Amino acid sequence: MSIASLAPDYIRSIMPYEPGKPISELAREMGIEEANIVKLASNENPLGMSAQARDAVHAAVADLGRYPDGGAFALKAALCRRFGVKPEQLVVGNGSNDILELVTLAFLAPGLSAVYSRHAFAVYPLATNARGARGIEVAARNFGHDLDAMAAAITPQTRVVFIANPNNPTGTFISGAALEAFLGQIPSHVLVVLDEAYTEYLAPEQRYDSIGWLERFPNLLVSRTFSKAYGLAGLRVGYAVAHPDVADLMNRVRQPFNVSSIALAAAEAALGDEEFIARSAELNLRGMAQLTEAFAAMGLEWIPSAGNFVTFKAGDAIGVNQSLLRQGVIVRPIAAYGMPHWLRVSIGLPEENARFIEALRQALA
Amino acid sequence: MSIASLAPDYIRSIMPYEPGKPISELAREMGIEEANIVKLASNENPLGMSAQARDAVHAAVADLGRYPDGGAFALKAALCRRFGVKPEQLVVGNGSNDILELVTLAFLAPGLSAVYSRHAFAVYPLATNARGARGIEVAARNFGHDLDAMAAAITPQTRVVFIANPNNPTGTFISGAALEAFLGQIPSHVLVVLDEAYTEYLAPEQRYDSIGWLERFPNLLVSRTFSKAYGLAGLRVGYAVAHPDVADLMNRVRQPFNVSSIALAAAEAALGDEEFIARSAELNLRGMAQLTEAFAAMGLEWIPSAGNFVTFKAGDAIGVNQSLLRQGVIVRPIAAYGMPHWLRVSIGLPEENARFIEALRQALA
Repeated sequence: MSIASLAPDYIRSIMPYEPGKPISELAREMGIEEANIVKLASNENPLGMSAQARDAVHAAVADLGRYPDGGAFALKAALCRRFGVKPEQLVVGNGSNDILELVTLAFLAPGLSAVYSRHAFAVYPLATNARGARGIEVAARNFGHDLDAMAAAITPQTRVVFIANPNNPTGTFISGAALEAFLGQIPSHVLVVLDEAYTEYLAPEQRYDSIGWLERFPNLLVSRTFSKAYGLAGLRVGYAVAHPDVADLMNRVRQPFNVSSIALAAAEAALGDEEFIARSAELNLRGMAQLTEAFAAMGLEWIPSAGNFVTFKAGDAIGVNQSLLRQGVIVRPIAAYGMPHWLRVSIGLPEENARFIEALRQALA
Repeated sequence: MSIASLAPDYIRSIMPYEPGKPISELAREMGIEEANIVKLASNENPLGMSAQARDAVHAAVADLGRYPDGGAFALKAALCRRFGVKPEQLVVGNGSNDILELVTLAFLAPGLSAVYSRHAFAVYPLATNARGARGIEVAARNFGHDLDAMAAAITPQTRVVFIANPNNPTGTFISGAALEAFLGQIPSHVLVVLDEAYTEYLAPEQRYDSIGWLERFPNLLVSRTFSKAYGLAGLRVGYAVAHPDVADLMNRVRQPFNVSSIALAAAEAALGDEEFIARSAELNLRGMAQLTEAFAAMGLEWIPSAGNFVTFKAGDAIGVNQSLLRQGVIVRPIAAYGMPHWLRVSIGLPEENARFIEALRQALA
């Protein structure tokens, strides 16, 4: 028997995550110059990162021979000042993907289960299955989370409920009031992982103070990332705010040097640049209008989105996507999310959005 | 019942890894200026990284708003050219710590076991225990691996044997011939993880071609890092070379964007700068002589080391370490490795080594 054939069944049956196609890959495959490719496939900030973060990155280069501070002292101090929390409530991750993994590593195992919604972020089932735990997928309502059905799906073996707000890839939004009511229903043996990767894009009237709820709900974990509005996707850094006992267990299973020194420095600087976040959100709002007006003009259905992306019904999504790729435009097919007729497009710069709209017109013609 | 109290017992009993004390932490604790602190605690390259790697880092900053290439196409291509392997044999990790974790994630589970040596790298028991698997620690021979005893310790439930060569923290070395003989004895249901984090420091006469053995031993995995001789500890990047079936399973449990774009670019550039590695090894050789001559002059026992560090018997190691810290010199206590009377010191620049030697004289006086 080979070692590979002896890996646990739940490992051997994992289907890996399918990322957005990198620009370099399309360039190789299609012989298109990289500069002529528009990538709107991974919900990245088209402005990149703030100048403050960039300066911090260049400054950090001097010391890369040293291991990072595994305790993330300086970034945690900045997060504590910003959110009024204590360092022992924080876990810093290699992107918020790492935060989600650490939750499953600390709290799931064969015989236990996690609850998540259909059409929610792909890492929830992936990480759950990779621990040998059972994933309980709850049917969506209007492409969003059906919170009542999710609460009802919890069993005595459930340890984690994943909620994405806004949800990726559908962009659906749950109000703060609805989330608070949901938290009040969830038994204390279940950790509610509230994944707020896109929270910086919420409109002012949509905002809610989830971190403030931690005092009342010790079984809440708020997950955030620097990969989206903060524009640090290439550096990998995210964080969780939780009860100290929850954070402690996650820090025990965390790789001691899971976040690079450059990422730590950039995140600390990025957190201080609120003007950049406001500018990014405003650009996003305008781009969302640009895209949805075009969808309306083309008679295409789309799902109203609170994130920096929008999912639209393309019909023959495989064919449309192939045509877009040939035209040098990368969007995201979401068949793996149970939505084979839809495509997800990230909001780009105005000229990138225009390139996409024109290419989509061609693809549908 | 709180969610934290319901985490599996093997998670709740983990004792986290104790990293070398960061310079910034000692500066805060003792009120010493950072510039006056010498850190010889984490086996870092005192030269930092090569100029080629630094250039690649600065160039990569332009694109940090984008997700990294999760498939690590360019770095894998460089590794394939260098080692004559195929991309499907490679796993790229967030440091080789990530490689070790991925091995345990793919192949260990409750009811299974891993074999490792006493006084070997702390991550082997940590990662094994974090999967709920049983760790079988085999007594050391002269502070090094007792390969016969390790082979004999394998049970039908064993899936992994960890071998560090050179070993950290003791610096002991196993010859290529002895390793090959060991591999010939190991049943095919056991993956031999050969952790070569320090292999670039081996003397020419110690070198052996472990990657060349992969054709004969599909249950071998060779783990390497860019954190030591390549000087990229702060960036987090390492890799494994293995049978494609083994690499495939590890890539399934790998976080899709586990390595930052900056780390990928720096590693690719660093791999091309062989002159830098030769210079680093030569500096290390001279520093090793500088330290061991001083130990001899002070009448201190040390363990001959093939790495970029050396472990010496300090007697009252806690007291000696405290005195070194007060003098602004950070070395590594290794009580957690079952060696409470020893300290490990990394080879630094000649002047750093001299600072350490003088501080040690004071500490012992």
